[in-house]
Amino acid sequence: MPPPACPRIGRLPAGPRDAISDVTGVTVGHATLADGAVQTGVTVLRPHAGEAYLQRVPAGVAVLNGFGKSTGLMQVQELGVLDTPIALTNTFSVPAVAAAQIRACIAANPECGRSLPTVNPLVFECNDGYLNDMQRMAVQEAHYAQALAGATADFAQGAVGAGRGMTCFGFKGGIGSASRVATLGDGRVFTVGALVLANFGAPQNLVIAGRPLAAGAAANDGPEKGSVIMIIGTDAPLDARQLRRLALRAGAGLARTGSVFGHGSGDIALAFSTAYTVPLSPHAPMPAVAMLHDALLDPLFQASADGCEQAILHALWRAQTTTGRDGHVRHALTGALAQEQP
Amino acid sequence: MPPPACPRIGRLPAGPRDAISDVTGVTVGHATLADGAVQTGVTVLRPHAGEAYLQRVPAGVAVLNGFGKSTGLMQVQELGVLDTPIALTNTFSVPAVAAAQIRACIAANPECGRSLPTVNPLVFECNDGYLNDMQRMAVQEAHYAQALAGATADFAQGAVGAGRGMTCFGFKGGIGSASRVATLGDGRVFTVGALVLANFGAPQNLVIAGRPLAAGAAANDGPEKGSVIMIIGTDAPLDARQLRRLALRAGAGLARTGSVFGHGSGDIALAFSTAYTVPLSPHAPMPAVAMLHDALLDPLFQASADGCEQAILHALWRAQTTTGRDGHVRHALTGALAQEQP
Amino acid sequence: MPPPACPRIGRLPAGPRDAISDVTGVTVGHATLADGAVQTGVTVLRPHAGEAYLQRVPAGVAVLNGFGKSTGLMQVQELGVLDTPIALTNTFSVPAVAAAQIRACIAANPECGRSLPTVNPLVFECNDGYLNDMQRMAVQEAHYAQALAGATADFAQGAVGAGRGMTCFGFKGGIGSASRVATLGDGRVFTVGALVLANFGAPQNLVIAGRPLAAGAAANDGPEKGSVIMIIGTDAPLDARQLRRLALRAGAGLARTGSVFGHGSGDIALAFSTAYTVPLSPHAPMPAVAMLHDALLDPLFQASADGCEQAILHALWRAQTTTGRDGHVRHALTGALAQEQP
Amino acid sequence: MPPPACPRIGRLPAGPRDAISDVTGVTVGHATLADGAVQTGVTVLRPHAGEAYLQRVPAGVAVLNGFGKSTGLMQVQELGVLDTPIALTNTFSVPAVAAAQIRACIAANPECGRSLPTVNPLVFECNDGYLNDMQRMAVQEAHYAQALAGATADFAQGAVGAGRGMTCFGFKGGIGSASRVATLGDGRVFTVGALVLANFGAPQNLVIAGRPLAAGAAANDGPEKGSVIMIIGTDAPLDARQLRRLALRAGAGLARTGSVFGHGSGDIALAFSTAYTVPLSPHAPMPAVAMLHDALLDPLFQASADGCEQAILHALWRAQTTTGRDGHVRHALTGALAQEQP
Repeated sequence: MPPPACPRIGRLPAGPRDAISDVTGVTVGHATLADGAVQTGVTVLRPHAGEAYLQRVPAGVAVLNGFGKSTGLMQVQELGVLDTPIALTNTFSVPAVAAAQIRACIAANPECGRSLPTVNPLVFECNDGYLNDMQRMAVQEAHYAQALAGATADFAQGAVGAGRGMTCFGFKGGIGSASRVATLGDGRVFTVGALVLANFGAPQNLVIAGRPLAAGAAANDGPEKGSVIMIIGTDAPLDARQLRRLALRAGAGLARTGSVFGHGSGDIALAFSTAYTVPLSPHAPMPAVAMLHDALLDPLFQASADGCEQAILHALWRAQTTTGRDGHVRHALTGALAQEQP
Repeated sequence: MPPPACPRIGRLPAGPRDAISDVTGVTVGHATLADGAVQTGVTVLRPHAGEAYLQRVPAGVAVLNGFGKSTGLMQVQELGVLDTPIALTNTFSVPAVAAAQIRACIAANPECGRSLPTVNPLVFECNDGYLNDMQRMAVQEAHYAQALAGATADFAQGAVGAGRGMTCFGFKGGIGSASRVATLGDGRVFTVGALVLANFGAPQNLVIAGRPLAAGAAANDGPEKGSVIMIIGTDAPLDARQLRRLALRAGAGLARTGSVFGHGSGDIALAFSTAYTVPLSPHAPMPAVAMLHDALLDPLFQASADGCEQAILHALWRAQTTTGRDGHVRHALTGALAQEQP
Repeated sequence: MPPPACPRIGRLPAGPRDAISDVTGVTVGHATLADGAVQTGVTVLRPHAGEAYLQRVPAGVAVLNGFGKSTGLMQVQELGVLDTPIALTNTFSVPAVAAAQIRACIAANPECGRSLPTVNPLVFECNDGYLNDMQRMAVQEAHYAQALAGATADFAQGAVGAGRGMTCFGFKGGIGSASRVATLGDGRVFTVGALVLANFGAPQNLVIAGRPLAAGAAANDGPEKGSVIMIIGTDAPLDARQLRRLALRAGAGLARTGSVFGHGSGDIALAFSTAYTVPLSPHAPMPAVAMLHDALLDPLFQASADGCEQAILHALWRAQTTTGRDGHVRHALTGALAQEQP
Repeated sequence: MPPPACPRIGRLPAGPRDAISDVTGVTVGHATLADGAVQTGVTVLRPHAGEAYLQRVPAGVAVLNGFGKSTGLMQVQELGVLDTPIALTNTFSVPAVAAAQIRACIAANPECGRSLPTVNPLVFECNDGYLNDMQRMAVQEAHYAQALAGATADFAQGAVGAGRGMTCFGFKGGIGSASRVATLGDGRVFTVGALVLANFGAPQNLVIAGRPLAAGAAANDGPEKGSVIMIIGTDAPLDARQLRRLALRAGAGLARTGSVFGHGSGDIALAFSTAYTVPLSPHAPMPAVAMLHDALLDPLFQASADGCEQAILHALWRAQTTTGRDGHVRHALTGALAQEQP
């Protein structure tokens, strides 16, 4: 039997790609390492085609569970902007990717750290140690460059890039994305996109579009040790305070898949807007932007939650069975669902 | 047709009452005002039978959406303890109830605000303005005393106390409670209880135990204007940092009912522990408590989420159709469900 | 001997009044209760002459020590705006003043809490219990109206309004204000004003413009039980995130007076901007404001710190010896300094 | 003329070394790189002699200004414990040191990231780019090991380790340390130690023990670009919530040196306690500790502020004139003070 199609979440329409790249200008690239005990990688999201260090997009962070080793969030919380593309990788590869971000910034901006401020590496991580031998620290700085160079609006999902070795509810997890188109009460239309690195969830807790998965289909090998990174992008004009609010709503979508933000799961959301940028230079003119009124935000909040839930399902549906270190295997959910059907 | 029974949420067993009073020592009382355009009240939760000002239970706060007028949270966040019983009421009655808490504390502790520190009123609120004419500020200080005096382990739920005028997903909301018994990985057993003041939710979003309610049954009179207060109690030995973590997980249960933490909904959770108390006096001995290891907390997190979702359903199931100001009516969900059944 | 003049803090020039009312549009009013054991009051700051509920100024909050009973901060932190004038009073009078703010808002906006959102009372407090018999809860709602009606740019300082019964470093404290004019690196000029309710400090720790006060001059009656509220206003265009940053710098000025943010001292700062307002109505146009670049903020940060330190000194210099309950007396600092001079 | 001796701050006595190593068990080591354009290094603080990953000390974080690239703080805030020794280095070397911490942990705990949780690198940084060519990223993982191996109670201060290239108020800054012995109201005696990486301050703002430095002595080459890291250690039994409170008070000491927490200065404080440890393993017994009552904390808060101010002065007094990249020179403060004396 073929597996059932991935359910559609919510009532809001998706954008043309049903991916975060429906937010104009957003692209995503991967470097995937898949060789025996090394099953890992890097994923990079570019908020726009320009130099992130010079033209900084506004952003906000919501930490649902701070048990994690992501780096760069403190400065985003203080200054409300991103300095770099957003990178994702495995836990022990954060330093390599952070170093790569620094070198890439210096290469493009030779005065970075001299007459210009230092750059703030922004690297998110999940623990892919079940499939990937993290102790090898296999990700190299070149993999960041490779992922960045390959960034495109039509990017792969599933067991690719940072998602290569990830596990979600006992099944193969990884990278998923989705988008929703939200119409405000005043008629304006904005896109909200989600990109997740899905590596969380106790198998017995998986809920698909409101339906708990029958126990027989679930893999189960003990307590949850994962995490999930939720990146929300939008073209709506929001400031950093509002973007933190938007990011937090991704957690509602996460909860609907069965997560209770488990102790061991670093559950972190970041939202950014492409509606304007803040220049690095204090001598450049600042944007004069009419932000959305907070009382209009509910459709965007719904889109953040629905988009995140949809992105998690996309990660599960698109990830293929993967074998890693010590013969460990994570099976694709679709295979289990195909067997389960009457 | 009789309405369907309220669904059971999750796999964890409930305590004997399936209410927060399954946490030993916790009692709840109400003062209900129901007279024409006045449909409101006060609910008081006592964490133990003693004087809350002298023997302070540890507590933590998670603000999912800070759009709200609850008072007293800043000090709980700083000091990690409660000074008073927990009070709930309508938005415009927070001052009256806070004043009542101060007077009650002075009456019991004549040196409060003289040689002893001032007391920190802790009053949560939701906006019951659809049914209740809040502008009358009908709640008086005596109603707090009445609710406190009536606190019992076997308390009413639904359209009572602070829940009298509340609305949830377009139906009659109010007070709900539930409990779950969690067994840790090391075999120890603890109770987690939830008490909610449920006044949130856009009608079209209601999800009951994973199932969206058929559109035909839903009332709908425009944008969400509510809030939800989620009180979590436990007998597990946790410190204030851990209790904040526990409180946040109530938000996962909230999300499963269809909430996306809407802009206008002040969504606030507080968790407390009855496992020990901190004395007001710095001369009294401090408790020497072995807290739970954080890596053991997942069953409690599950209980917080499940208990909160169950408590919201209890509020909906137990609230009866109520008529308030200007002929406004909120119908009981159970009536709609009874009609909906085939 | 006459007492020495109040020292000037820092190198930045003051505005014409050296008071927060140098920020155009800001006015302050007091209601003072001084009758035997009742030595207390209310102070109200209006950020502009209009209706605060309809035209909301942006604001940010920095909680240095959350041991305090101020109300309304949670919503300011979430939404980044003020709904009401800023009120200050004693600890046990917060409910009365909050109720007064609600009634004043309803009187001016009859749909508040009906078709319009509820209003968020914003009331700060310090404990004036040494001089004032707080248990009498003498402040009535009418005192708020009186203070509001009397708001003016040329307001009194010292032992007036909310400052009537306050103590600072063992001397008479109360209301103080100051302003600084800051020139940015790009030549633009903005005013930063400070208003403090000074009720903090262990006597042996007082530092005046860098000079510890000679021990002989200091009163000393045991441990600190006070608090300080620091309100910072500016005409610089800043958003809520930036205003939180500005508010925090008031704490640097506070520290220079000898405070270590003592356990019992609720040290709270709020900063607001008058450069633009956010309409209550989501149907009204939102302001399109070019905020200041964060890299230009240092002169404003300096002004916040210097202004706060100056305002504390003004409170001390302008407060007169006051006798309150049970014959308790707080002496003016100026008297002690006059005696101390050679 | 010899320079004046470093002033003593405050009334509390110092411990025998007047350094953070007066907290029993705390040791500090450096690796210093000083070769032409490379003027940088690594400093490591060990909270105890055991394996930090297995026996985790409780800790709290206070972010006064989050403009910085330190890594690891999010998890400390969530879990309230440290996993690793505390490392300090320059901004662009955070990844190298974080990688070194991971490898060191794996070497000592081969199951780290396999059957055991991953380790949380904790690396603080300041920008030493005026003297040090940060773009060379000269710090290697071996330097971390070297600093760790050399950790001792009698460690050098000034232009050593991470302090090698740092600048403070236009003078040579770097590593400073101090301690204070605090006697609580109940007679118990505890030690509070401070270690700072001092790299902040606009030259015209330096205040030494309350006295502004005469303008003539101050170097001045434009806007502040620095940061300061403040590590507070104590043997007092405090939990993570209380340690955050203790850390924040270091900021009061910082402010007294003339800092207003400038925009470009990432001002971050972390406090830890050696009074007990939390085991990594949830199967090991948890400590049953009677924490200090919060109402007793003021002497510790004073010690945190005074110790931090003293440590900053120690950094200035002990740092020697250093020449770095492109002929840049930072002069020792002591030289300027010697010239300034009449």
